[in-house]
Amino acid sequence: MENEIEKIKAMLLLKRYADLRVFLCSMNAADVAAVFGEFGDDLPILFRLLTKDFAAEVFSHMDSDEQELLIRGFSDSEIKEVFDELYVDDAADIVEEMPANVVKRILQNTGAEKRLAINQILRYPEDSAGSLMTTEYISLRPNMTAAQAITRIRRMISDAETVYTCFVTADDRTLLGSISIRTLLVADKDALISEIMDKSDICVHTHDDREDVAKAVKKYDCATIPVVDDEKRLVGMVTFDDAIDVMQEETTEDIEKMAAIAPNEESYFKVSDIAHARNRIIWLLILMLSASITGQILANYEAAFAAQAILVSFIPMLMGTGGNCGSQTATLIIRGMSTDDIGMKDFFRVVWVEIRVAVLTSVVLGAVNAVRIILQYHDAKLALVVSLSIAGTVIVSQLIGCALPMAAKRLKMDPAVMAAPLITTIVDAASLIIYFSIAVRFFNIG
Amino acid sequence: MENEIEKIKAMLLLKRYADLRVFLCSMNAADVAAVFGEFGDDLPILFRLLTKDFAAEVFSHMDSDEQELLIRGFSDSEIKEVFDELYVDDAADIVEEMPANVVKRILQNTGAEKRLAINQILRYPEDSAGSLMTTEYISLRPNMTAAQAITRIRRMISDAETVYTCFVTADDRTLLGSISIRTLLVADKDALISEIMDKSDICVHTHDDREDVAKAVKKYDCATIPVVDDEKRLVGMVTFDDAIDVMQEETTEDIEKMAAIAPNEESYFKVSDIAHARNRIIWLLILMLSASITGQILANYEAAFAAQAILVSFIPMLMGTGGNCGSQTATLIIRGMSTDDIGMKDFFRVVWVEIRVAVLTSVVLGAVNAVRIILQYHDAKLALVVSLSIAGTVIVSQLIGCALPMAAKRLKMDPAVMAAPLITTIVDAASLIIYFSIAVRFFNIG
Repeated sequence: MENEIEKIKAMLLLKRYADLRVFLCSMNAADVAAVFGEFGDDLPILFRLLTKDFAAEVFSHMDSDEQELLIRGFSDSEIKEVFDELYVDDAADIVEEMPANVVKRILQNTGAEKRLAINQILRYPEDSAGSLMTTEYISLRPNMTAAQAITRIRRMISDAETVYTCFVTADDRTLLGSISIRTLLVADKDALISEIMDKSDICVHTHDDREDVAKAVKKYDCATIPVVDDEKRLVGMVTFDDAIDVMQEETTEDIEKMAAIAPNEESYFKVSDIAHARNRIIWLLILMLSASITGQILANYEAAFAAQAILVSFIPMLMGTGGNCGSQTATLIIRGMSTDDIGMKDFFRVVWVEIRVAVLTSVVLGAVNAVRIILQYHDAKLALVVSLSIAGTVIVSQLIGCALPMAAKRLKMDPAVMAAPLITTIVDAASLIIYFSIAVRFFNIG
Repeated sequence: MENEIEKIKAMLLLKRYADLRVFLCSMNAADVAAVFGEFGDDLPILFRLLTKDFAAEVFSHMDSDEQELLIRGFSDSEIKEVFDELYVDDAADIVEEMPANVVKRILQNTGAEKRLAINQILRYPEDSAGSLMTTEYISLRPNMTAAQAITRIRRMISDAETVYTCFVTADDRTLLGSISIRTLLVADKDALISEIMDKSDICVHTHDDREDVAKAVKKYDCATIPVVDDEKRLVGMVTFDDAIDVMQEETTEDIEKMAAIAPNEESYFKVSDIAHARNRIIWLLILMLSASITGQILANYEAAFAAQAILVSFIPMLMGTGGNCGSQTATLIIRGMSTDDIGMKDFFRVVWVEIRVAVLTSVVLGAVNAVRIILQYHDAKLALVVSLSIAGTVIVSQLIGCALPMAAKRLKMDPAVMAAPLITTIVDAASLIIYFSIAVRFFNIG
């Protein structure tokens, strides 16, 4: 991209606008939008060079602050030009991100039909299928012939976001099936749509969570999935590209939650310092205060480590290993649940897997540890105490690591919250109790 | 699904095969494949009930062990039937997972043309665009008219995986551009392909990493992306559904690496106990032995906590907070780099953000902590020591958390390895050194 940016800068400097227009329009819209991010004050000049329909496509790929900057500088007719060209779902996404006064100007300057469609999408909850969908689909009737359908598609094509799949509806807009352009092209001219359409009832509901929409697109490999309301009437469709964006955003959210960060809506550099700090401090405080409890447990065993000072030096290793085991297990379970490899009905199966894996793991870690301690301290009793503690800690941590995320899901909480940081804090306390209970017994202290 | 499984079981029991065939063929292929996972010995009977083309579609959605089980029971002509119906990329994926003797039988029983295509895909490295692509695309010539192109598409359609986008090539197969079925449908009958095609050179190379292919599909919102060889000749295309699968697999791999687990190729329940244990033990051992170093540091300060036993009880909180801060930062940076929000050139910008956020965070955590200690222990000096240590730990951990993943990337390592577990281990040691250095000074001990 560096190369393109340099060229554009040079052409801007020399005011070679005709060349610049040709150059920009030869690029891909997504690339132009990415490159435009590097131009602050010159952005409006550059944007006005683009042809009308290409401008709208570039606009839909831009970041929301750049979109806002452009809209604020737009005349009413420029707003109308861009928004008339935009797909309804993109237009609704943009409107959703804008402050109220900008939204008002946008809606005042879009055609009545599009305004209605935008408002319809905005009415749905933010993370629902309804808010993700576009209303620009092509619907066909079951009693049309293949030839009539193709004629209708040709006529409607400029209003549709995609023509790969068309939906077949009854007179009351009830979804009856779908038909791909591929089927239409090979079908006999006189074949009835009702006979050649795909009758499988794959669809999502307006109030389904957008994550479930993305999962359905992945599962059924469909380029578009129809969205229906409570009466099974077709109201829109979601295209694969929006499903891909949802997958990435939801995964980022999960990963952030798993690291005890309150999720950001924006990308890293778009978040303010205050918001960055706030997103992290909430969980840090909760975990910090929980860790004081672990501290109290440690204080209770003061006598033990006063008598055997060497015991203290194994604390980091025990707590660290417990935390790592717990978070390994929790991570596998959380990810498995989010990709639907693990369901709630698998609870006992998961526990049984983890018990077997924990036994294997604890034997290996315990043995390695025993060898190390005997070599370093020549103290078999110490080796036994620490290795037994390691083994116990591993087993307890893996059980906590698999049980907590599944329990969270059962309680309708997000399992991702039960990840490494929280589990580590709980396991820290557990491992200390195991360690000192064993040590006190073997060394006759406390 | 429970419902469907019960019905199928009942029909099997009553040997109502005709009804069963109708029932299965009314379902979606992905659902049938999922349901089939619940039938062990009855699987071949069920599978043979399906119509030929539907059977192949269901087959491509099944797990590889079920596919293997079926193939082992197939006659040569059944293998031929299924593999002739499969898309080349699906067939190549299946062959890749099978043991050598099964592969031999498959290749012996597929047509010469398909065998050649499968072998071509298998020649590419496992995670490359070449291994992900299908060779069943439709290519057009620039001097065709729109009407001729549509005729050609109609004729070729049964051999193509998708017809949404066709690719335009020169006589030597060099990629010249692409054209969507949508453009063809609205174009004038006599319009030349060279005049209406999209000339933007979006494509990937056979040796590109499959993760980059998925990123290109996401960036350009394209349903298919062409794959070219070193001479820019078209050799295949990747469809959005394969790109979605890659995105999910790569993310799972990243998440597992971030939790110090050697990535599994298989889903949770498909991994053997030994493999589960091995995937986790490798990192646990490394981290366990590294944590002994932290233990040695602690042992060095024996005199300090012998003089002030209360100091020990703050260790879990300090180490925990440091670990959490470090892993929060590392997670944000690793995810930011994998979604291309953060690049290597942003190193100093990231460090500067983290310094500002760290100062905010350390002030808040230090203050809360000071209040708690004064309330609980009425000891201002102790509060000062612990709060200063917290503040120092927070700043150091966030810097380590952002620097290590970026350093890993610079050294061409996978940044995901520098996540929570490793950072926690490093930060544990750092926080102890900070804590005891401050404590020794304030309490005149050691």
